[in-house]
Formats: sequence, C-alpha cells, structure tokens
Amino acid sequence: MASYGKKLINDPNDVVTEFIEGLVESYPGMQYLDGFPEVKVVLRADVAGAKNDKVAIISGGGSGHEPAHAGFVGEGMLTAAICGDVFASPQVDSILAGIRAVTGPMGCLLIVKNYTGDRLNFGLAAEQAKSEGYKVESVIVGDDCALPPPRGIAGRRGLAGTILVHKVAGAAAAAGLPLEDVAEEARHASELVGTMGVALSVCTLPGQVTPDRLGSGKMELGLGIETNYVPITRGSRVVLMVNGLGATPAMELMIAAGKAVPQLQLEHGLAVERVYTGSFMTSLDMAGFSITIMKADQAILQRLDAATTAPYWPVGVDGNRPPAKIPVPLPQSPSARSDVSLCRPVQLSKQGILLEVAIEAAATAVVNLKDPLNEWDSKVGDGDCGSTMYRGATAILEDLKKYYPLNDAAETVNEMGSSISRVMGGTSGIMYLGCFISLLPFYFPQLS
Amino acid sequence: MASYGKKLINDPNDVVTEFIEGLVESYPGMQYLDGFPEVKVVLRADVAGAKNDKVAIISGGGSGHEPAHAGFVGEGMLTAAICGDVFASPQVDSILAGIRAVTGPMGCLLIVKNYTGDRLNFGLAAEQAKSEGYKVESVIVGDDCALPPPRGIAGRRGLAGTILVHKVAGAAAAAGLPLEDVAEEARHASELVGTMGVALSVCTLPGQVTPDRLGSGKMELGLGIETNYVPITRGSRVVLMVNGLGATPAMELMIAAGKAVPQLQLEHGLAVERVYTGSFMTSLDMAGFSITIMKADQAILQRLDAATTAPYWPVGVDGNRPPAKIPVPLPQSPSARSDVSLCRPVQLSKQGILLEVAIEAAATAVVNLKDPLNEWDSKVGDGDCGSTMYRGATAILEDLKKYYPLNDAAETVNEMGSSISRVMGGTSGIMYLGCFISLLPFYFPQLS
Repeated sequence: MASYGKKLINDPNDVVTEFIEGLVESYPGMQYLDGFPEVKVVLRADVAGAKNDKVAIISGGGSGHEPAHAGFVGEGMLTAAICGDVFASPQVDSILAGIRAVTGPMGCLLIVKNYTGDRLNFGLAAEQAKSEGYKVESVIVGDDCALPPPRGIAGRRGLAGTILVHKVAGAAAAAGLPLEDVAEEARHASELVGTMGVALSVCTLPGQVTPDRLGSGKMELGLGIETNYVPITRGSRVVLMVNGLGATPAMELMIAAGKAVPQLQLEHGLAVERVYTGSFMTSLDMAGFSITIMKADQAILQRLDAATTAPYWPVGVDGNRPPAKIPVPLPQSPSARSDVSLCRPVQLSKQGILLEVAIEAAATAVVNLKDPLNEWDSKVGDGDCGSTMYRGATAILEDLKKYYPLNDAAETVNEMGSSISRVMGGTSGIMYLGCFISLLPFYFPQLS
Repeated sequence: MASYGKKLINDPNDVVTEFIEGLVESYPGMQYLDGFPEVKVVLRADVAGAKNDKVAIISGGGSGHEPAHAGFVGEGMLTAAICGDVFASPQVDSILAGIRAVTGPMGCLLIVKNYTGDRLNFGLAAEQAKSEGYKVESVIVGDDCALPPPRGIAGRRGLAGTILVHKVAGAAAAAGLPLEDVAEEARHASELVGTMGVALSVCTLPGQVTPDRLGSGKMELGLGIETNYVPITRGSRVVLMVNGLGATPAMELMIAAGKAVPQLQLEHGLAVERVYTGSFMTSLDMAGFSITIMKADQAILQRLDAATTAPYWPVGVDGNRPPAKIPVPLPQSPSARSDVSLCRPVQLSKQGILLEVAIEAAATAVVNLKDPLNEWDSKVGDGDCGSTMYRGATAILEDLKKYYPLNDAAETVNEMGSSISRVMGGTSGIMYLGCFISLLPFYFPQLS
C-alpha cells in the first residue's frame, strides 16, 4: 500500500473526492456539498444551515490525515469538515461554502490548526463570512511540543491534540452554549494540550527498534512538559492520547499506551483520567505515533465524556476503572481434577521405574532435536517447531520429578497432557501428546 | 514500524501481554485474567462468571489481528477474548480459564475461526468445560471465499466475516436468548458470510498500483459469490465490510468502499444495507484489505444495529440514508457579490486595454514558468509550486475573457482573487494574488 500512497500524491484531487464518497457511503449521518473537485466539504446530514439552532463547529485542513477531520463529523463534535487536497490547505471558497451550509443564527466556530496556509485561508473565509452577516469566531491550535513556543504567525503546529479541542468545542456547542462561550472553552482547551510525535520510519531495519527506543519517545514527551509549553505540573489530572500515524498496528499503539500510563503516573506524578488509543490523525501510511497530554479538570472531562455520533471518536474510555486484572478462576466442579491428590509415589513400582526412564529418555531426545527440528520446519513452515517441542519436553521433565503418579500409567499420561497444554499453544501443542506417547515404546527396549 | 513488527515475532509472549495491559488501560470496561504469560484472556469487567445471567460469547485465536478479538469485548458482543501468541492458537488451559471466568448458568458459545489449531484447542477446552458441568456450544466460522468449500477438518479459513458473527451472537445473547437459540443464530450468520482478501503488499513499487488493480480485487469478490460459497443472489439484501489488513490508511479503505458499493448494487444487483469500513481484523502491518459480504434479512440487521459497548465495533453506520450530496449553498446576504452584474465591457477603455494585455502577459509568463518553478521548488519543498501557479494563471486567463470588468481595475483585481481562490488551495494560493499583482507593472512598460 506504500505504492498506493505514492499514487495519491500523483493525483490528489481524485483520492480526496473518492475518500469522501466512500465515507458518506459508510456513514449515513454524513453528506457532502456537491461542488467537487473544488469544494470538498463533509457535513452532518441532520443540520441545515439557516435552521441550525446550535453553534456550528467547523474544522479542516489538508487531507491525508484520515480519519481527521471528516471522520469526526457528528452530533457533539464537528458540524462540518473542510477537506483540502493531500497535505494542502483547503481553498477559501470551499471553507466559505462549508460555513454557509451549516451556520445558523448562533454562528460558527472555526478550529484551525496552526499552519500558515490554514490560518490564511480560514482567516480570509472568516472575514468574508462576517461580511455576509455570519457570526464567526476562530481558535488556532498549536499543540506541537517539538517546536519552540509561537512567535508571530508561525510556531507550533496543530497535531492530534486538535481532536481533543474539537471534542470540547463540539460538546459545548451541543449543550446549547452561545458562540462566545464555545469559543472560550475551545481556546482554553487549546492552551492545555501538548503533543510529541515519534516517527519510527527511520527504524525500518529488523532488530533496530528496542523497548528502550519506545522509552526514549516518552522521555521526549517529558521534555515537552518540562519546558512549560503546557501548564502541566506534578499532581495535574490529565488525559492521554496515543495516536497512530497511519501504518502502526493497534497492538503497538496499545503497547505504547500501556507503557506511557505508568510512566506519567509514577515518573511525572500525573493522574491519568482517560486514555484514547487509536489512529485519529495520521499522515497517510507513516509509521510511528504521537503522544498527546491534555490537562483536564472536571469541566473538560465532562466535555470529553459527552456523547457524540462522530464515528471515529473513541468510545468506552470513560467510567470507573476496576482492577485491571482478576484471578484466574479455579475449576468450579468437584469432579474436576484436584492437584492436591497428585504426587510422586514414595516407592516406584517396576512399571513406574520403566515409565520414568522412558519419559525421561524421550523428552531428552526431543530437547536435543530442537535445532534440527527448527531447521527442517523453516523449509516448510515458520521455523519454530523445535522450540515449541522443546517447551513441551522441558515442562514434562520438570513436572515428572515433581508430581507425576508414575505407578499409574494412565494418570501419568493425563498429567503429561496438562504439562503440555500449560506451556504449548498453536496447532502443535495439542497434537504433541499423541506423538510423544508414540515415542515412548522406542525407549522401552533399552531398558528391558 | 515494519521493524517493530519483526521484533514482535522475536518475542511474541511479551508483546501480547503488553498489548493486553495497554488495552485494559485504555478501556476501563475490560479486565484480564492474572495468568500471564500462559493465560491471556480479556473479559468484560462487569461480568462475573457464576452470576452471568446471559449466554457468554467467547472467541479468540492467534494474536496479531488486532483489534480482533479483544477489541470487540463489550456488552452486546464478546464476553471474553482468548489471545494466543502471535499467529498461534491459544492454549487449552487459557481457553478453559476464559470459559470458567465468564460462564454462568445460561452457558457459553465459543465462536471459533476455522483453523486446525483453533478447532483442536477450543474443541478440547469445550469438552473439558462440559465435564466440569458447563453448558457449551461451538460455532465454526469459515468465510474465506478464496479457498474451496470445506472438506473434513480443513477448508475455508475464518476471516473478517467472523466479526459479523460475533455481533449477531452478542446481540442475541444480550437479548436474553437461551444458548441453543444464540448458537443457532450464530451458525445461521456464519453460513451467510463470505470474505475475499486483497493483499497489496506485492505492489510496493511506486506507480504500479492503478485504479484498475482496485477493480480487479472486486472482480475476485464477484467470483466468490458466483461459485455459491454463500447463498447470495441478485436482489439479496447484504451488508458490506471493508477491512484494512493493518497498514492501509483510512483514506484508501474509504475509496475501496466507495467503489465497492455501486459495483455490488449495479453489477451484482444487491441492496447494500450497511457499510462497515475500518481495520477490524488485521495481520500486523500487512498492506491490503478484505471485502466481506453478508446476506442480511431484517432479523440480522437488527442484531448488527443493536447497541454494544465493544470499542472497535463501528458506530454510525445505521439509520436512514439521506442523499449523499447536497447543493453548495449560495451567499445568503444581498450584500455579497452577485456574478450577474459582472461582465466584460462591450467597449474597453484605454486603461482596460492596458490592464488586459498586462494580465495576459503576466499570466502567460507564469504559465511558461511552470517547469522551472517546479524544479526550483523541488530543491526546497514538494516540487509543485510551478503546477500550483499554473492552475491559478490558467483560471485567470479563462475568466479574463469571460467576465472580468476590465474598465474597473479595482473590481478586476477582486475577480482575479475569485479565480485564484476557486482553483488554488494550499498556502501559495492565498499569497498568489499579491505576487501576481506585483508582476503586472513589469508588463506595463511594454505597452506604453
């Protein structure tokens, strides 16, 4: 799909309009303005400008950051998203069309990421809309902690933290607040948020990314906090957003979230109230992620927790946090095997001695076959057969001395099954016992 | 992050447990069983086995397919997800622990993807749970249309269609149905679903992926339908799932969805009732997507539309479908510019003639500078400056003849601004007018 990304760049107008067509096909709550290719505006299907009795929340910017911004159109979040070409600010006429389409008597708030093109185009559209009689306010978001504090028109870019500002503003608007108050809440939120990106695409060579590297990303975040870009100090309540940049699997984002939370709590003394993990504001198929921290008092948490129909806002992140883990339950029925009764006999019968030596010999043979088995498996499979067998054999050797009731051959085979199913997954684990038992007779002759 | 994927394979136990820790950190509605590394089970925090008064829905399989399956744990969907190591079936003991943790007197349904290891391990766990007195039913899902119909234990693999079966079963369980009925609904759903994967990772060279290639993926889907793996015929009502395999940007999934819907409707005569687009069942960071079609009558739609707290089930896909696009609104205020009054004067003044020649000369100069400007921009930027300028100049040349009121210099400059803002986005568009106007005097001397 990397090649597909290149194709996007070659003909950006088509991919953005086709994206919008697919988005609206997936989400019946959205519509778009019939002005392709110049006007690329996604809006709530249930809002008609003149009749809109709430403040309209409008954002947008260059495309290529999907699901931002169009994926956040919905009740309680964005009323309209203005899509530029890939990585290019939208045109003034497109922004103006969006304003006209969704703005009613309560006015509209433009949430603008701090890029020169966005500020100029949204700014000009705002002026023109005002001249047409609309009430318009703007809030600029620049949450990038990697750049120095703003000086003049340039400065910190707007990154994933913008989405948290969308949510606060959208919830305030849905609550029926007037434009000035919605704008004030959005501006306040924008001052409380900081983002640090960690692009890992430099690290494409196998074996060069280590858990330490993940840690170093979070140290950079700490740097952002410490230089006071955002007023977060020890004891602050915060929300965390771990945002994938496009090609980062959910598994890895969760791993990052799982590491970031204790670090923020223990090293920085912050109370992490919510964790939003996912790919919210991407850069096509870039590999990596960003970490956003927003200071969050009860009022902001209320806005973040408020309901929204925006399809890409993460659900299920609020609510009381129970213990993360609970004990593995024991078998409920008395008919189930109870390990208490199982132990190695004090005196082994002749049969028991034979069985023990046979098991030991077979398991040791399997242990010694680890490397050749791996090698043969690598010709036809994923090369882990020897390692998997080794795990099972090692478990059998350990448990054999501990508690196998060797005088009872049937029960001993049962226990070998338990040892194996404890340590071996995959298809082979379950088939192992049969193979292993079939090995045993080969070792009996040596004894008799 | 491709390198990170390799690391996952080197030490799979750690990444799966760390993924679960991060997942539970993000979603307070989830817990996990304290049996790492052998028992890797994510379960609903609000369900305690013995007290569970609904049928428990349990699924799972190898990890590496996130958010499946753990991301679909929630009320109305999965009660527990059993996570194996990366691409390896979970161990019997882990499955059994999950069954014990969430199964009450109503029993549990195991939804198992059709892989040999999953069938053996889930099957053995089911037998053992039954011997402990639990009511257990199993449904096998094999929705892969690329493989021949099942013969014996092997056959079609379980792919993204399994998630639709999870949803149907979860909603049936939430409705309070007994185990037999829940199992029957899940089995019925599993017989109505087909999936065709399109891995695009072979196509990594720039410029080799064309829109035709995307189309060919959908033709393969048609093949799956036509060979009657699933009983879908012209006139059937269906739902569509476009599932990213890990590294495919949301933009491209939406483009695929936008193309698939009209093709299913027009070429295959199907009524597409819902479109689920996203990355639901991935393969780490594989590039590509799969297309799943499920035949859906009103009863199944009701299950799919039912509420769930599972965080990765897509929201906002149901409801009445309004027209996809609506007209671009016109300016509301009479004070706004009305194009009706603007036209080229019948007779140009001396000033008007000068202005026209100057504009023409300046615009033509910009047109001729396209390639050198692109080349210079490629040294410092993204190499599209010349093309962007060209678009603006071409629009000015077109509109100049059509309607610029050339005898009124101020109004003409205003119109040049409109021409530019119509066709040019980005930062340059908005700065173009100033530069362009500053070029004009250079061309006046030639005339005077």
